[in-house]
Amino acid sequence: MARPTPLSGFPELLPADRFAEQHVLDHLRRTFELHGFASVETRAVEPMDQLLRKGEIDKEVYVLRRLQAAEGEGDAGIGLHFDLTVPFARYVLEHAGKLEFPFRRYQIQKVWRGERPQEGRFREFVQADIDVVAKDELPFHFDVEIATVMAEALSGLPVPPLRIQVNNRKLLEGFYRGLGASDPAVIMRVMDKIDKLSAEAIRELLAKEDLDAAQADKCLALAAIRSPDASFAEQVRQLGVSDPLLDEGIDELAQLVTALGAVQLDGVTVTADLRIARGLDYYTGTVFETELEGFESLGSICSGGRYEKLADDGRNVYPGVGISLGVTRLLVPLISRGHLTASRSVPSAVLVALVDEESRPASNAIAGRLRARGIPTEVAAAPQKFGKQIRYAERRGIPYVWFPADRASAAGDDQAGDDQAGADQVKDIRTGEQSDADADLWNPPEADLRPAVTTLDTSGATS
Amino acid sequence: MARPTPLSGFPELLPADRFAEQHVLDHLRRTFELHGFASVETRAVEPMDQLLRKGEIDKEVYVLRRLQAAEGEGDAGIGLHFDLTVPFARYVLEHAGKLEFPFRRYQIQKVWRGERPQEGRFREFVQADIDVVAKDELPFHFDVEIATVMAEALSGLPVPPLRIQVNNRKLLEGFYRGLGASDPAVIMRVMDKIDKLSAEAIRELLAKEDLDAAQADKCLALAAIRSPDASFAEQVRQLGVSDPLLDEGIDELAQLVTALGAVQLDGVTVTADLRIARGLDYYTGTVFETELEGFESLGSICSGGRYEKLADDGRNVYPGVGISLGVTRLLVPLISRGHLTASRSVPSAVLVALVDEESRPASNAIAGRLRARGIPTEVAAAPQKFGKQIRYAERRGIPYVWFPADRASAAGDDQAGDDQAGADQVKDIRTGEQSDADADLWNPPEADLRPAVTTLDTSGATS
Repeated sequence: MARPTPLSGFPELLPADRFAEQHVLDHLRRTFELHGFASVETRAVEPMDQLLRKGEIDKEVYVLRRLQAAEGEGDAGIGLHFDLTVPFARYVLEHAGKLEFPFRRYQIQKVWRGERPQEGRFREFVQADIDVVAKDELPFHFDVEIATVMAEALSGLPVPPLRIQVNNRKLLEGFYRGLGASDPAVIMRVMDKIDKLSAEAIRELLAKEDLDAAQADKCLALAAIRSPDASFAEQVRQLGVSDPLLDEGIDELAQLVTALGAVQLDGVTVTADLRIARGLDYYTGTVFETELEGFESLGSICSGGRYEKLADDGRNVYPGVGISLGVTRLLVPLISRGHLTASRSVPSAVLVALVDEESRPASNAIAGRLRARGIPTEVAAAPQKFGKQIRYAERRGIPYVWFPADRASAAGDDQAGDDQAGADQVKDIRTGEQSDADADLWNPPEADLRPAVTTLDTSGATS
Repeated sequence: MARPTPLSGFPELLPADRFAEQHVLDHLRRTFELHGFASVETRAVEPMDQLLRKGEIDKEVYVLRRLQAAEGEGDAGIGLHFDLTVPFARYVLEHAGKLEFPFRRYQIQKVWRGERPQEGRFREFVQADIDVVAKDELPFHFDVEIATVMAEALSGLPVPPLRIQVNNRKLLEGFYRGLGASDPAVIMRVMDKIDKLSAEAIRELLAKEDLDAAQADKCLALAAIRSPDASFAEQVRQLGVSDPLLDEGIDELAQLVTALGAVQLDGVTVTADLRIARGLDYYTGTVFETELEGFESLGSICSGGRYEKLADDGRNVYPGVGISLGVTRLLVPLISRGHLTASRSVPSAVLVALVDEESRPASNAIAGRLRARGIPTEVAAAPQKFGKQIRYAERRGIPYVWFPADRASAAGDDQAGDDQAGADQVKDIRTGEQSDADADLWNPPEADLRPAVTTLDTSGATS
């Protein structure tokens, strides 16, 4: 078999890079669980009628067929999920009788889309979603909770600064209605194009919707408002538009940014940004987007919002609020540019050297004693000269090599030193420092126990 | 939308059961990493020509097609992987230049097979594989290592006793050759049917391969040998067959069971069982199978062996040894019969009660202080009477409810007691015990920090 070539859009990581990904996934899971979110995994497939319900992205679905399926066999009716929201809505309905509401869940899984691959767009990628779903009614404080939990989860990640932008569709809809628009939803969809069109083009589209120049100016002025705190409210009011829904939206958004402003976040900023609409989605209140500094062209890597109807089984309506983090979209561009990796390609903190093949059980026993105390350890593959065993560790990034006490018996070795009579020794191969050690007592520094995730400066990154 | 129904063969877990699964996956990962195995994830899809290389199971592959694919588009050439060995072999070849050999990897992922679903057979299921692969040569001590690591990983799992059975194909092949069989591989395939056919039927098949009654008796006698230690060797030698490959196989198998006998294992027994051949696979030496006590009809839930040629790129041959654990096959039958679950449906160890909606920030602050010390905590959804908030915790299995100091302001509450002036209190709702507590100092017992995985007696289980 010839050397295989990668499949475009299906990223795979080398072991050291995979550690960086696992580090991020562990941090996300830990944060979600600290906040009481339960893990859910759904099957990878859904019936096609479920996948096509929203209609927008039918071209992106991968349909499954059994290779030897009989003509007309039912399998053709299933496809791979393209997000985690559709499966979660189905899971909630299917298991509603066995779930406790309000129900907080996180879900970290791969999803598939048959899109044309490009940077930040993959055919297979990992998403990490959190949602709270309730029966019939979901109080607004859950919007604050969801935003807080995701902001905390993003905080401290080994990535460039993240900018969370929040808005509220009630604010937008109320504003457009108060302004006199006959169909606020249409205005919202026009204004959602603000990043792609010129102000002039937006004005023309608004004119078609019977907004005059003064009204269009106010729409554009609204979209220009942003603040790191609740001060946006005063700027909105100065535009002189009034509507009860607008008031409600302002109040919710103010609560949200005020609450987020009180959370200690590392590498994450939160801004009320009245340009954000997420027009193509079914959100009904709070909306979120997130930009990665220096990688703005990737688009939003973490988005979500409030939807009054996540699911509906005819008897009950299930409102929800949730955010989805594109883990692969966030990490793979950083990894593939060398900005993010880990300090070693194996979990092992220690390589136990091997004096000769006969003493393998002795080296295994040392490794076992280290592992019993939680120290990842491997034993050398072959009883080579110690210099070669040290280089074996070096190539894998293993920081410590452990020499069994009887290593003096290894003839012709110039690396082991000669001042040890009967005690094991451990060498930090980065510094060359070597000292007596007891496998029941010795511990590496905490930082060496796991591979360290290393982030390189991304200031030179272009998007 | 009506209530959805499950898809046969695609199991999904409720949150408490998912905890049990996560507990098992965490234990596996931790064991594998302690032994220096690096995590690899491969994409879910492989080119069809890769998937069909082994020929045996082509009917089981799910082929992918983009819903709106153009006629003849390349996508039709990919399918979902049906195991983790084919993708790993491809990964090794694709990335050989960037991997350090011998290369230890573990891989925990879903795989898909379009089989007819039945108990223990799923269309989507999780496998946990470990393999060591080398370039050109892989010493036998890696067989011992792989078996030891998996035995340790299986040890202490919350499942009924597991019986690992080991054998060696060199022993079988050498024995049949020494006996005078012209094609030992054919005899091995006949003997692999020993669990399905009567001794008489086996004798007839062996007669067709020109083995006489005495030779057939020896084959059956060999297959009846089992021992928990190296004593099988003497029993084999008493059959009076000799062959160099037989000697090599006996020696390897003796090393393996002796090494495994020295490992402390909880709930796992290891037996040299000379009946095991794994005839349809491409193993060339050590072979493993594993039975779950009381669930023998599930077949082997953890199998593997040595293959001299995991991969081959024309320049190098990559021998390997590995074992694959069927996580779903092991857990779902236990879960679906109620033998395995967890003590709660949420990660939260503490529910912070809510006095009134105005004091939500105070309750949030308490939760934040507990979380900062690693205690999963949620805040009550609504300021109901404390009795209702306690029942909210009870329904989710949350063991502790935390009452903020100012709860006295909650009028009409009969659950809060009346002996607290100004101190927070925490109540163990299982015992009713309640005491003053400081959110910066209090800790639940270690056992309450995470949901406890509960195993019920399976002695009544029928397979």
